[in-house]
Amino acid sequence: MPIVSVNRKEHFNAAHRLFNPKWSDEKNETVFGKCNNPNWHGHNYEMVVTLTGEVDSETGYVYDMKKLSNLIKEKIVNRFDHKNLNLDVTEFKTLNPTAENIVKVIYDLLRSEIENQYEMKITLYETERNFVEYPR
Amino acid sequence: MPIVSVNRKEHFNAAHRLFNPKWSDEKNETVFGKCNNPNWHGHNYEMVVTLTGEVDSETGYVYDMKKLSNLIKEKIVNRFDHKNLNLDVTEFKTLNPTAENIVKVIYDLLRSEIENQYEMKITLYETERNFVEYPR
Amino acid sequence: MPIVSVNRKEHFNAAHRLFNPKWSDEKNETVFGKCNNPNWHGHNYEMVVTLTGEVDSETGYVYDMKKLSNLIKEKIVNRFDHKNLNLDVTEFKTLNPTAENIVKVIYDLLRSEIENQYEMKITLYETERNFVEYPR
Amino acid sequence: MPIVSVNRKEHFNAAHRLFNPKWSDEKNETVFGKCNNPNWHGHNYEMVVTLTGEVDSETGYVYDMKKLSNLIKEKIVNRFDHKNLNLDVTEFKTLNPTAENIVKVIYDLLRSEIENQYEMKITLYETERNFVEYPR
Amino acid sequence: MPIVSVNRKEHFNAAHRLFNPKWSDEKNETVFGKCNNPNWHGHNYEMVVTLTGEVDSETGYVYDMKKLSNLIKEKIVNRFDHKNLNLDVTEFKTLNPTAENIVKVIYDLLRSEIENQYEMKITLYETERNFVEYPR
Amino acid sequence: MPIVSVNRKEHFNAAHRLFNPKWSDEKNETVFGKCNNPNWHGHNYEMVVTLTGEVDSETGYVYDMKKLSNLIKEKIVNRFDHKNLNLDVTEFKTLNPTAENIVKVIYDLLRSEIENQYEMKITLYETERNFVEYPR
Repeated sequence: MPIVSVNRKEHFNAAHRLFNPKWSDEKNETVFGKCNNPNWHGHNYEMVVTLTGEVDSETGYVYDMKKLSNLIKEKIVNRFDHKNLNLDVTEFKTLNPTAENIVKVIYDLLRSEIENQYEMKITLYETERNFVEYPR
Repeated sequence: MPIVSVNRKEHFNAAHRLFNPKWSDEKNETVFGKCNNPNWHGHNYEMVVTLTGEVDSETGYVYDMKKLSNLIKEKIVNRFDHKNLNLDVTEFKTLNPTAENIVKVIYDLLRSEIENQYEMKITLYETERNFVEYPR
Repeated sequence: MPIVSVNRKEHFNAAHRLFNPKWSDEKNETVFGKCNNPNWHGHNYEMVVTLTGEVDSETGYVYDMKKLSNLIKEKIVNRFDHKNLNLDVTEFKTLNPTAENIVKVIYDLLRSEIENQYEMKITLYETERNFVEYPR
Repeated sequence: MPIVSVNRKEHFNAAHRLFNPKWSDEKNETVFGKCNNPNWHGHNYEMVVTLTGEVDSETGYVYDMKKLSNLIKEKIVNRFDHKNLNLDVTEFKTLNPTAENIVKVIYDLLRSEIENQYEMKITLYETERNFVEYPR
Repeated sequence: MPIVSVNRKEHFNAAHRLFNPKWSDEKNETVFGKCNNPNWHGHNYEMVVTLTGEVDSETGYVYDMKKLSNLIKEKIVNRFDHKNLNLDVTEFKTLNPTAENIVKVIYDLLRSEIENQYEMKITLYETERNFVEYPR
Repeated sequence: MPIVSVNRKEHFNAAHRLFNPKWSDEKNETVFGKCNNPNWHGHNYEMVVTLTGEVDSETGYVYDMKKLSNLIKEKIVNRFDHKNLNLDVTEFKTLNPTAENIVKVIYDLLRSEIENQYEMKITLYETERNFVEYPR
């Protein structure tokens, strides 16, 4: 059967702040600029989850998109949406919530839920003009 | 000369929280749900400023879009972008930053900068699926 | 309090066919072309519901967007989504499901659910390049 | 029968230059900035033609979108697409091709082709962030 | 000469239904849910055809986009647009028209028309939030 | 540390003309059609610059997006925006400004500015429906 990639897009709206607690305020300000605002700022994040695998000959599906949508909502959206990533999401209590780190956390949270026969990739849009992909 | 509406779109990314300080936590939770998160959440806001007026016969412009873009950046983006609307923006210290209240504040801030010969309208997108317009 | 328009976008995917049962097959073919395919075709419809009213001084809302979203889902999406408009939706059993007629049906279905103090308008996108508005 | 607005979006790609031949080079540079480049620049223009009228009880149409699309292609796209507006399009030989002037020219070219029973409006996007409407 | 990928986006609007004729109605309902509606539903499909090859030193083209657009229209759009995929398109009479199966059929139909020196890939959007890619 | 791709989107508006000076007018017309208009035409180009590298453990960044944005503006936008690619941009004085050639020129201009530890890719949108990628 052919190998196809299937993609599902979901979104969450969250506050965050970029900073490194080991650095001085000045260094944080220099490196992270306005993203370092101690009062937080926020984004409408869009994420695309890509699964690559063989098409099932019985269903014509690589993966049930409804099941994938529910999984993303349960594991990611319910924990990230309308939250402060730094304060409310365990993974970012000691990890700077840059788009690069968020995309890796999303990947790890979903990877353990998806059978190994599927390759997985996450694309995360922080804004329409800034987005990241993991794995590369 | 013809009367034309000209529109300029700009954006800002901000954190906010919806709540009414006169209400109990329970009532705030009931009315505002996840938007009431005391740790904030955030959005990529997009705003469209519409000016309606006569086309100038010398320039072919209703209003110079570069001048309008600069004005929006100076009066709105510089004050709202990468900020916490409740904590960092004077107008929302005592005003709940719903999209409805934000669009009215943007209108008032720009109205005093734009000559009376132009009608003005603001459209504010909180998300791709929720947006507001003032005046109606 | 200021008068503001609030907008909520929702979507449904449906099959339909355009034809007038009083006409011959030839006339239906001439008028409706490929939209007259007796085996149906379909669209991803996007609709925007606009409510115009006074901002409530206690909530800062014109209308609760979550409540509006739920209402649209209950009254429109649950009845239209993944349906054949001609065969599955009562209103179109004797009404040609053109975008013009669909937008009017959506308006009528929602109008009775929304208090009279709000003006209402529906925008319906049949494709990215074809869309209609009611009232005008 | 209900009054509905129907909208059709089409596009053309063109070069242009903004300048006023009565002005000095310095004044043109001051007013029009980089849009005054004597070697031209260009845009992907998107236009939306809106017609407002009564829904026909036989067809369920306000206006046949295929007919409207063909009309826009014949009267506008064929004359503007992949053209230099200043050099190739008669109307702009003595009229500065600002978005405001282009939208008015499009309106005039189409108005004479559309029966008087329909109200007409044109929205012209010069970029995603700059767009104009006529009539207002 | 450099190796570049060129992409052309086209669209078609179609009805379909997901089901496996070997299964009971109950199993079809369980697996395909509302996509199993026997009265059909539909989508605005968008497809991107990607060709990868060497840039021709005489033309500066990898492949003439006008030629590619015409080929997609002739081989895919003319056969799929405003059709019922299950009933009107030969390939899906015995193949469930999931996005995964449609993208493979589009690939096979175009592959034989495109010279072997070009690598080809198809991306098919069933909705803005569900899309597939083949080869992976 | 994980390897992540980061993407930054920027835009420029430019005029151009496709032709091969070694060919007759007839052959240029045959090959390039309306893109060969000697009076030029133009586009709103969108480009995405993708950098792939290791996430820095101190910053959580692969590359500072503000720095990347500024670099693209300095090296590409300032030289291409509101310009005639054929007449105003050195690289296209003897190179046909097809999307394929433009994307390669952008890559070369930026490659020398980005440290070798980063892989780089450019995606260039000439229109919403025509876009190219280099390297493939």
